[in-house]
Amino acid sequence: MELFIPGPVNVNKELREELSKPMIGHRSKEFSELYNELIPKLKKLTQTRNKVFISTSSSTGLMEASIRNTVSKKCLNLVNGAFGRRWHNITKRNGKKCETISKEWGEPIRKGDVEEKVKEKDIDCVTLIHNESSAALENPVEEISEAIPDDTLFLVDTVSSMGGVDIPVDEWDIDICLFGTQKCLGLPPGLAFFTVSQKAIEKSKEVKDKGYYFSLDRFLSYDSKDQTITTPNIPLLYVLNQQLEDILNEEGLEKRWKRHKEMAQITRNWAKKHFDVFPNKGYESKTLTAVENTKNIQVTKLIQKLRERNYLISNGYGKLSEKTFRIGHLADKKPSQLRNLLKEINDILDLV
Amino acid sequence: MELFIPGPVNVNKELREELSKPMIGHRSKEFSELYNELIPKLKKLTQTRNKVFISTSSSTGLMEASIRNTVSKKCLNLVNGAFGRRWHNITKRNGKKCETISKEWGEPIRKGDVEEKVKEKDIDCVTLIHNESSAALENPVEEISEAIPDDTLFLVDTVSSMGGVDIPVDEWDIDICLFGTQKCLGLPPGLAFFTVSQKAIEKSKEVKDKGYYFSLDRFLSYDSKDQTITTPNIPLLYVLNQQLEDILNEEGLEKRWKRHKEMAQITRNWAKKHFDVFPNKGYESKTLTAVENTKNIQVTKLIQKLRERNYLISNGYGKLSEKTFRIGHLADKKPSQLRNLLKEINDILDLV
Repeated sequence: MELFIPGPVNVNKELREELSKPMIGHRSKEFSELYNELIPKLKKLTQTRNKVFISTSSSTGLMEASIRNTVSKKCLNLVNGAFGRRWHNITKRNGKKCETISKEWGEPIRKGDVEEKVKEKDIDCVTLIHNESSAALENPVEEISEAIPDDTLFLVDTVSSMGGVDIPVDEWDIDICLFGTQKCLGLPPGLAFFTVSQKAIEKSKEVKDKGYYFSLDRFLSYDSKDQTITTPNIPLLYVLNQQLEDILNEEGLEKRWKRHKEMAQITRNWAKKHFDVFPNKGYESKTLTAVENTKNIQVTKLIQKLRERNYLISNGYGKLSEKTFRIGHLADKKPSQLRNLLKEINDILDLV
Repeated sequence: MELFIPGPVNVNKELREELSKPMIGHRSKEFSELYNELIPKLKKLTQTRNKVFISTSSSTGLMEASIRNTVSKKCLNLVNGAFGRRWHNITKRNGKKCETISKEWGEPIRKGDVEEKVKEKDIDCVTLIHNESSAALENPVEEISEAIPDDTLFLVDTVSSMGGVDIPVDEWDIDICLFGTQKCLGLPPGLAFFTVSQKAIEKSKEVKDKGYYFSLDRFLSYDSKDQTITTPNIPLLYVLNQQLEDILNEEGLEKRWKRHKEMAQITRNWAKKHFDVFPNKGYESKTLTAVENTKNIQVTKLIQKLRERNYLISNGYGKLSEKTFRIGHLADKKPSQLRNLLKEINDILDLV
């Protein structure tokens, strides 16, 4: 099945075969060697000098980790979609004080929306989704970052964009930046990563009730031994190492970002010709497109017919179901493969 | 490398190749079909009618899950090794009231040790490690279970025994039983499982501050849709499905348990002949053996020499380092492979 959903993504055969390599012990010398290859590559990918940790969890687990380790006063959750809402739910569910600033799905969060609020003394953390895949919108992280005071932590989910889009973590002053294997990295699901600034590490020392599994002091202590905290998915680390090599030194980051931009442009042009693009102009995601269903087609039927042709796309997320449909164009997909999908849709819907 | 450590374990080539199968979407029909094959097999494996959930975490994550979801008054942590101690640390770190009953490493926890304490009104949960791999000891779960009052929850870690040892979850009244892929199941690390009784589910409803990632209500809600909560490691689910098929219908559970017993017996006989067995007689683990270093050999050197011959065993855990060494005999290892390892040790140490 050709996956054009917002993730998981198709994984190249050569990479999948790498999964079959024999197992090594996670407290062995061989493991530490692998670890010491991986961490510098992850730092290059995220453009950071901060610590980078590997977690045996999904990225949602690291959203919980971020909140439990850093919020001691009050967290401001910026919400303009389902995943921004998830940050808020996680904050509440972990017994932390929090407030939201909300915008409609499809409208970006702007500096002007937050700059007064973030100055309030009791706000110590701000959460944001970079690429809000429920609305296929990219929030302007750099601009928002400018509004955030020095002593406030900025926690950003880049789950559906890191590796496909230029996200300079240090330049944008992101204290915690989290993502997983199964989106733009083009790998199977099963591991998540977060970059953590020194400021966040210091802050976490004064936070109580951090739990055990996701506690930063434990991540730090195992990192100093060139190991992960718990037994990680070792086969996935093998392919991650190979894929980061390909991304950094074969395709190259610049070219990878450019390819994602190109695929986004192709999809938007197609959408504008036949339907419309859902999020506000200038804030469309580069890794997936939400097509506004202006023709009032039956999306479920379209998805079913595409499935019969071996293609998978997504309906709109939650309340946008049937009102939009989403085409993922990320990871190792090629513009030619995307064009084939769009041709199939044209054929099914009789578009010319 | 031939792994004779307490895990991770060698994974058979045929299973590793299964990892390379193409990806499917985790919210797709294909995924739900896979899910509906997996859950009944996991129930057979654990001999339960309780719910079984799949978690994208290591088993340690599910220890945290168990504690956060069930303890509202006070937890009694039974400790006779490093992993029993971990239960206690997790309980404390999650801000729960707790107490321990401790025995020396190598001494089992018996019914008589706990039966008075567990009657105290404020104790609502009891934690235990079935197979305490730090001391290579098997705690008598069934016997301890008899002492636990009906309204108290019994949380048991079977990480290094489930799939290799007969653990009838329902018969032994285990409310939460947790384990992972990387030990007796003979698979790569990366996923964990827990069985959860109706009593534990009811109890969790009255517990506050359960967090988000590991909250039981979310596990339940996705299970009702035949899905996992977050994007799981899909390749690992493929091999799990294949391996459970092999365990249940190819080798058969009874034979698998018997093979583990046989390998334990071989290792103990060898240990008694040349050294001694560390834990108390009658409570030795069936999946790994801690050899008491009565000859005062240099364990690190032995491990190094075995490594040169392509075998990996483990030093004693923590404070038992050099005083013991540990040989894992679990998952899909054959008695003949184990005998080869012992021959190599004999050869290195000049034992006859």
